[in-house]
Amino acid sequence: MSDRKNEGLTLLENKGATYTFDYNPRLLEAFQNQHPERDYFVKFNFPEFTSLCPITHQPDFATLHISYVPAQRMVESKSLKLYLFSFRNHGDFHEDCVNNIADDLIRLMDPKYLEIWGKFLPRGGISIDPYVNYGKKGTRWEQVAFDRLSKHDLYPERIDNR
Amino acid sequence: MSDRKNEGLTLLENKGATYTFDYNPRLLEAFQNQHPERDYFVKFNFPEFTSLCPITHQPDFATLHISYVPAQRMVESKSLKLYLFSFRNHGDFHEDCVNNIADDLIRLMDPKYLEIWGKFLPRGGISIDPYVNYGKKGTRWEQVAFDRLSKHDLYPERIDNR
Amino acid sequence: MSDRKNEGLTLLENKGATYTFDYNPRLLEAFQNQHPERDYFVKFNFPEFTSLCPITHQPDFATLHISYVPAQRMVESKSLKLYLFSFRNHGDFHEDCVNNIADDLIRLMDPKYLEIWGKFLPRGGISIDPYVNYGKKGTRWEQVAFDRLSKHDLYPERIDNR
Amino acid sequence: MSDRKNEGLTLLENKGATYTFDYNPRLLEAFQNQHPERDYFVKFNFPEFTSLCPITHQPDFATLHISYVPAQRMVESKSLKLYLFSFRNHGDFHEDCVNNIADDLIRLMDPKYLEIWGKFLPRGGISIDPYVNYGKKGTRWEQVAFDRLSKHDLYPERIDNR
Amino acid sequence: MSDRKNEGLTLLENKGATYTFDYNPRLLEAFQNQHPERDYFVKFNFPEFTSLCPITHQPDFATLHISYVPAQRMVESKSLKLYLFSFRNHGDFHEDCVNNIADDLIRLMDPKYLEIWGKFLPRGGISIDPYVNYGKKGTRWEQVAFDRLSKHDLYPERIDNR
Amino acid sequence: MSDRKNEGLTLLENKGATYTFDYNPRLLEAFQNQHPERDYFVKFNFPEFTSLCPITHQPDFATLHISYVPAQRMVESKSLKLYLFSFRNHGDFHEDCVNNIADDLIRLMDPKYLEIWGKFLPRGGISIDPYVNYGKKGTRWEQVAFDRLSKHDLYPERIDNR
Amino acid sequence: MSDRKNEGLTLLENKGATYTFDYNPRLLEAFQNQHPERDYFVKFNFPEFTSLCPITHQPDFATLHISYVPAQRMVESKSLKLYLFSFRNHGDFHEDCVNNIADDLIRLMDPKYLEIWGKFLPRGGISIDPYVNYGKKGTRWEQVAFDRLSKHDLYPERIDNR
Amino acid sequence: MSDRKNEGLTLLENKGATYTFDYNPRLLEAFQNQHPERDYFVKFNFPEFTSLCPITHQPDFATLHISYVPAQRMVESKSLKLYLFSFRNHGDFHEDCVNNIADDLIRLMDPKYLEIWGKFLPRGGISIDPYVNYGKKGTRWEQVAFDRLSKHDLYPERIDNR
Amino acid sequence: MSDRKNEGLTLLENKGATYTFDYNPRLLEAFQNQHPERDYFVKFNFPEFTSLCPITHQPDFATLHISYVPAQRMVESKSLKLYLFSFRNHGDFHEDCVNNIADDLIRLMDPKYLEIWGKFLPRGGISIDPYVNYGKKGTRWEQVAFDRLSKHDLYPERIDNR
Amino acid sequence: MSDRKNEGLTLLENKGATYTFDYNPRLLEAFQNQHPERDYFVKFNFPEFTSLCPITHQPDFATLHISYVPAQRMVESKSLKLYLFSFRNHGDFHEDCVNNIADDLIRLMDPKYLEIWGKFLPRGGISIDPYVNYGKKGTRWEQVAFDRLSKHDLYPERIDNR
Ligand SMILES: [Ca+2]
Ligand SMILES: [Ca+2]
Ligand SMILES: [Ca+2]
Ligand SMILES: [Ca+2]
Ligand SMILES: [Ca+2]
Ligand SMILES: [Ca+2]
Ligand SMILES: [Ca+2]
Ligand SMILES: [Ca+2]
Ligand SMILES: [Ca+2]
Ligand SMILES: [Ca+2]
Ligand SMILES: [Ca+2]
Ligand SMILES: [Ca+2]
Ligand SMILES: [Ca+2]
Ligand SMILES: [Ca+2]
Ligand SMILES: [Ca+2]
Ligand SMILES: [Ca+2]
Repeated sequence: MSDRKNEGLTLLENKGATYTFDYNPRLLEAFQNQHPERDYFVKFNFPEFTSLCPITHQPDFATLHISYVPAQRMVESKSLKLYLFSFRNHGDFHEDCVNNIADDLIRLMDPKYLEIWGKFLPRGGISIDPYVNYGKKGTRWEQVAFDRLSKHDLYPERIDNR
Repeated sequence: MSDRKNEGLTLLENKGATYTFDYNPRLLEAFQNQHPERDYFVKFNFPEFTSLCPITHQPDFATLHISYVPAQRMVESKSLKLYLFSFRNHGDFHEDCVNNIADDLIRLMDPKYLEIWGKFLPRGGISIDPYVNYGKKGTRWEQVAFDRLSKHDLYPERIDNR
Repeated sequence: MSDRKNEGLTLLENKGATYTFDYNPRLLEAFQNQHPERDYFVKFNFPEFTSLCPITHQPDFATLHISYVPAQRMVESKSLKLYLFSFRNHGDFHEDCVNNIADDLIRLMDPKYLEIWGKFLPRGGISIDPYVNYGKKGTRWEQVAFDRLSKHDLYPERIDNR
Repeated sequence: MSDRKNEGLTLLENKGATYTFDYNPRLLEAFQNQHPERDYFVKFNFPEFTSLCPITHQPDFATLHISYVPAQRMVESKSLKLYLFSFRNHGDFHEDCVNNIADDLIRLMDPKYLEIWGKFLPRGGISIDPYVNYGKKGTRWEQVAFDRLSKHDLYPERIDNR
Repeated sequence: MSDRKNEGLTLLENKGATYTFDYNPRLLEAFQNQHPERDYFVKFNFPEFTSLCPITHQPDFATLHISYVPAQRMVESKSLKLYLFSFRNHGDFHEDCVNNIADDLIRLMDPKYLEIWGKFLPRGGISIDPYVNYGKKGTRWEQVAFDRLSKHDLYPERIDNR
Repeated sequence: MSDRKNEGLTLLENKGATYTFDYNPRLLEAFQNQHPERDYFVKFNFPEFTSLCPITHQPDFATLHISYVPAQRMVESKSLKLYLFSFRNHGDFHEDCVNNIADDLIRLMDPKYLEIWGKFLPRGGISIDPYVNYGKKGTRWEQVAFDRLSKHDLYPERIDNR
Repeated sequence: MSDRKNEGLTLLENKGATYTFDYNPRLLEAFQNQHPERDYFVKFNFPEFTSLCPITHQPDFATLHISYVPAQRMVESKSLKLYLFSFRNHGDFHEDCVNNIADDLIRLMDPKYLEIWGKFLPRGGISIDPYVNYGKKGTRWEQVAFDRLSKHDLYPERIDNR
Repeated sequence: MSDRKNEGLTLLENKGATYTFDYNPRLLEAFQNQHPERDYFVKFNFPEFTSLCPITHQPDFATLHISYVPAQRMVESKSLKLYLFSFRNHGDFHEDCVNNIADDLIRLMDPKYLEIWGKFLPRGGISIDPYVNYGKKGTRWEQVAFDRLSKHDLYPERIDNR
Repeated sequence: MSDRKNEGLTLLENKGATYTFDYNPRLLEAFQNQHPERDYFVKFNFPEFTSLCPITHQPDFATLHISYVPAQRMVESKSLKLYLFSFRNHGDFHEDCVNNIADDLIRLMDPKYLEIWGKFLPRGGISIDPYVNYGKKGTRWEQVAFDRLSKHDLYPERIDNR
Repeated sequence: MSDRKNEGLTLLENKGATYTFDYNPRLLEAFQNQHPERDYFVKFNFPEFTSLCPITHQPDFATLHISYVPAQRMVESKSLKLYLFSFRNHGDFHEDCVNNIADDLIRLMDPKYLEIWGKFLPRGGISIDPYVNYGKKGTRWEQVAFDRLSKHDLYPERIDNR
């Protein structure tokens, strides 16, 4: 059995986590990548994102897809969940939520590559799906980021609001 | 909580919106992009588009997918909805509706990139799906526009009219 | 080839139909049932229903399923379509639209049985699906109507607003 | 290997079948039920039904589901296919096609029970799905026919014309 | 155009609604049923339900299906949405949330029949779906309630936690 | 760990099974029901059924659904698989295959109830789905068999041959 | 916020649960039903069931659907998960696993009604889906149990082993 | 309202169209592209294609997807439908039908780009899906045509003939 | 009507085909491509492939997708079906079946391009999907073959063995 | 019939395999590629992967997709299954399991290309999907590996945790 408990991943074991619902990027925790010699992807699927409209305070709901290629640090999944739950009573536009999560994760991990796609539920018959990505300057992933952006979503998923 | 109310986004808060059903591009409103240093996509899904056939006046129905990469200005989602509802009693061909919406949004936002895919319900057993896109001249998005057009819809969605 | 042109089904042949968008039950036309000795079902699926909210005038959208067991008269499908299109600029609540369509079709056809299920697109994250039915008094279909109502929708369809 | 070639099932073996496209119920052939002591169902699924509108002569398309409980005679599947193909250039209303196919199969087989559900593709945004059934008089299937009719289609399938 | 504005349905028009996130059944509003002579169903689909675990305070998520047969009073849909949003920061078990919503709606409307099915997202690989229903004493709907309960969910939906 | 090896279930352990492709009902093996005091269902799903047309010898393919309520004996699943594979080079009509499998399983197990639904791939655009069932005489399952038969397939699955 | 912590539901809060992989029914914990005056259903969906074949020790996989109508006691969901995980290294036949889980839950809760449907992944092209149910003697749920059993699975789900 | 009636689009308005069922490319009509400065796609989905096998005369069925980038002329959708219906009693192989439709549309419109994908229903368990495309010589679309052909259908759709 | 009967396509007309179940590549027949000036794709979907495991002789099942770009010769579809049926009693590994079918079709047609994707049903919880392709040496399709291979299956289809 | 039994593929025939549940890469067996002159893909789909969380020991579940291009050696499928089952009682993070499986298979086969995509079930509302790939140094597959990585998962699958 691995001895990864020594890495400071206290969150997974110490289960008495406290849930806070005000935007708090300090909830994010990182751990060491065990395979730094290999570029690879890790994707998080999170269908439980909810925040508030900054104008009306009406709740908004989204599924977030977060993918990245780690360098030295990786985001711990339970801390990521707590961080995402901290938007619960926070008011911000869809486009800003997704951009700000990207900024926070880049700051935490300094990854080679990162992308986030938010798929929000409709309001008034119309829905908004922001997509942002990032490639580390000076690496081959800088070009990949633009290539992926330029090829983004050639096949929009079928949406009928039911 | 953000103070974005000061940006002139009066439409979201002032909920007593008036619905008009004659084509009216002046309904569109823009606001400032908060992340102009990052190229990113915003997609609107709108399954409630309806207009009239310009010859027979029979109602037509479509789902529109509108995606763009903002420069300085972004389209406000409620104003976009009101604008799209303004086609309700307007007569135009499918291909022209989609082209004209593209023209109006380019004029409003001067975006780096924009594309619209209309998926209309069938008439007499046949359906029409126009797709237009645009990349700003003199930016790398001009080439992206042609690349995306040339790769458009290699996998047509399954259609059986049921 | 059948000689049903003589029945007064002028609408199907005379294609120069005029589309009107104010609620008008006089658009409905009936023709004679050719199989009155047999009780059987006819179902219409109409995913293009649209009306207005009576308070805000915002457009509403629904798929209607209309099923009936004919007695002597049957509703002509093109006249039904024109009638349903006549709700386009008419304001009424979802529950009332469905009840009123039922009333109009019962008056037109005097059917043995009739039911209507409206499935509306969501507003503010919530959607409404009214279901009404009717069995002719003094026939076995009176009891069937209650039996069907009492067994209605034991398996609600999966709804995720996307 | 069974010796069922002696039953007169010449159609299956004699593959030089002629396809005729004028309604012709004499194309139907029957063979002996090998399990008359058991009541059981046989269902045919036929997504290739096409006929003509009796007024405009426009082609119509449907999937037919034909189910029955055999008594002494059963319909041979290839003859059924040829018979159904014979509606290709025949003009009739949806409701009448389905009723007439039922009548022809009852005449051919004298079954204990039979039902037909036609699911037609939309015309002008609306589709029609007739359902007829039959239970042999003086058998328990007479009551079953009404019970099934009275419980017909409590869950209309999702239709969006795409 | 209907004059239903006079019924006190101020909520729909007065759009400056305040969202509150503490359980509050007084948010519910009722209006008069326009078709009291007919028994019919109204179903609400609400995929945006969220509450907190009463022990750990972790957010929980569910889709609620609420169906009822009105007597004299009907629940106004926007008030229902605000009421359901009021569970946002409220802690309760899944089974209790669903039971309490049922109790509140019965108190508000005194309906002939009501049922609620909550479909919650999994925690630790397992998900919980409570179903409650109610039939008004002394009406035929009392028996219907038990019949529906006894036939509940014979075909559980396919669940794979993805 | 249970000691069920002593029951003569040699087939599961003795993995050097021989596959034979001539119809052979003696391949079927039974074992003792451990819960005879309880009536319960066991269903086998078998999408790998293949036999030959008795006239043309063309291969036919089907998914079989076999459900039963055991009395004292239960069919061992690997022996059932070998038995079903033994139709591989056997020629028989769809309706007869399904009837004969039912007869063989009834003889083997003397079950309280048994049903088989065969869903065959199309030939020339048409497919055949026989359904047979059985309830043991003198038990309540005799009536159940007819009740299930009489309610069979009120909702034919969607078929489009693609 | 409810004070249900006092009920002895220590498991949910005390998150340092120990996972054991030998069949252990003592892991199950119950709590008091808060709505004993109402008959209602609670369903658990568990797609993570795995056990071992008692003969070959090969791992088996299933999705379990467990539904019940509580009397006084209800099963705590985290304890149910731990109990189901305890089959991980336990060898037993599909039919016996499902029967034994039913027995353990009946013993724990003494419910009015309970049913379990196991849907196992295929071995050698064939899959097994046991279904058991139970109604408390001397209550109306005793008859419901047989009614549900007799109507079980009239519409087998589509299975193609892909 | 647009004045496009003056363009000679008489077919849409003059609804007394005659349906002919012998292959007739002269049924095709073109109109002027209103947006010649923009390269864009128009796709037709046609699930009602039917022709005859040239050897056996058995009816064949397909869904056609026709996509093109207009130059100066565009195909009028109703004329396209009538043209496609004219294959109804015409005998030709699948591959030849699709190639010939491409040739006729290229001749009519002289488009920048065109592609057709035919998806035919199976015969004897096997189905055929021809795909042809074309790029105008001397334009950038000539290279696009080969690029699209070389990348065609890397993900064949799931087919199980049911 | 085309006169393609003169091309030697005797198989389609002479319907008294003999089905043989020993691997026999001589069953394959070719005919002349009528559109040699155009590069285009033809795809066959065949969900009825079955062969035997060479070690255990257990039947295996697969759906094959065969796509090619013809040069001068094309494979006749009925002969292809008979050839594929000839693997019925032939024992070979999945990977070898797919490679050998590719070799046989290349030998028969000398195509510009060819690819085959076999999707086999699982054995013991695991399934195997071989994919081979080929581009004619000295043509642009040689490079296409590697490009397609290098981009193969970036999106594996969802598999859950049900 | 092939004589591949002589290759040492004893595992397939010798069915008395022992299942071990401690991580054991020595379970993997290889055999000779019969088509070394052709680059082609082999994909394994394995929806039965389960391991333990290294911190909490809670079971985790995933579907693995393993694809490779063989050089001289290929992995035998039954040995791969036994190897993957050996993670059953082994504790490791999702990202490490997938990386380590990749390392073991590269060591066994020295393939031209290999990739693994793990799709894990959610814990606490969030799921993790690692993707790793590898191209043999000094071959064209080294570049392919980066190209595939840089284009990985542009279309994340729809996830709603149900
Ligand atoms: Ca490593
Ligand atoms: Ca949808
Ligand atoms: Ca920023
Ligand atoms: Ca469809
Ligand atoms: Ca949906
Ligand atoms: Ca018999
Ligand atoms: Ca549809
Ligand atoms: Ca009324
Ligand atoms: Ca799912
Ligand atoms: Ca209570
Ligand atoms: Ca499947
Ligand atoms: Ca223009
Ligand atoms: Ca299908
Ligand atoms: Ca599946
Ligand atoms: Ca070779
Ligand atoms: Ca899902």
